Amino acid sequence: MAKAEVRFIGVVEKAGEDEAQIKVFPEYCAGLKGIKDFSHLIILYWIHLRDREEERRILLVFPRRHMINVRMGVFATRSPSRPNPIGLCVVKLVKIENCVLTVKKLDAMENSPIIDIKPYIPRADTISKARVPKWTMHGPAT
Amino acid sequence: MAKAEVRFIGVVEKAGEDEAQIKVFPEYCAGLKGIKDFSHLIILYWIHLRDREEERRILLVFPRRHMINVRMGVFATRSPSRPNPIGLCVVKLVKIENCVLTVKKLDAMENSPIIDIKPYIPRADTISKARVPKWTMHGPAT
Repeated sequence: MAKAEVRFIGVVEKAGEDEAQIKVFPEYCAGLKGIKDFSHLIILYWIHLRDREEERRILLVFPRRHMINVRMGVFATRSPSRPNPIGLCVVKLVKIENCVLTVKKLDAMENSPIIDIKPYIPRADTISKARVPKWTMHGPAT
Repeated sequence: MAKAEVRFIGVVEKAGEDEAQIKVFPEYCAGLKGIKDFSHLIILYWIHLRDREEERRILLVFPRRHMINVRMGVFATRSPSRPNPIGLCVVKLVKIENCVLTVKKLDAMENSPIIDIKPYIPRADTISKARVPKWTMHGPAT
């Protein structure tokens, strides 16, 4: 087996850096129990506009938003064009109402399917002193 | 469309908290260019042993490893049983040789397929003051 099936558990109903909304489909809503006790979440979404064969074959990209003119491997970037168009974003949870999460800092586009939601746990997810190359410091965070 | 296809780009060849090895398949190896400039990576892997219908239907779990006897929604836990069995782990990159990454702190089991590798970028991924419920402080980090 060299592939598997991801199922969409929700969708970005409203995009926006400042305040975005994620609707979790009713059949998955029970999975949100207890989530309001976390201030931050990791959202995994499907970059549906890049789910095309030509985009998924890309292995080298110019990180243009970071103003560098050298090709990098996609796994050394957060480029949306990659073999599996999975976006990862840490967001702040503002509120949850009727299976709809209101969050801040989501970088997904409207109508992007959601494939997973995980609690952000500093003990596991925070490496404040991680080393990064200089080019990542220019432009947007990812 | 309510689902999509994930492709396996590599595999956990050797598991182990202390030192693990991830083999990236030759056809994806070019995507690693530049990765050695990052000290930490985010590994997304497929929890293949949980890719069964009965596991993927689970929406509530007892986080037993955290010694709490209350059911939580899977999206409020890092449980391996979830609608999409995707594991997320931040690892330290030790070295890279011939498409094989040697890393520390990988929590994936041997033979787990790898679905994505992303650079860890503190500016985007670090929320050192994230709030978590007390039960997450007992037992393992995730």
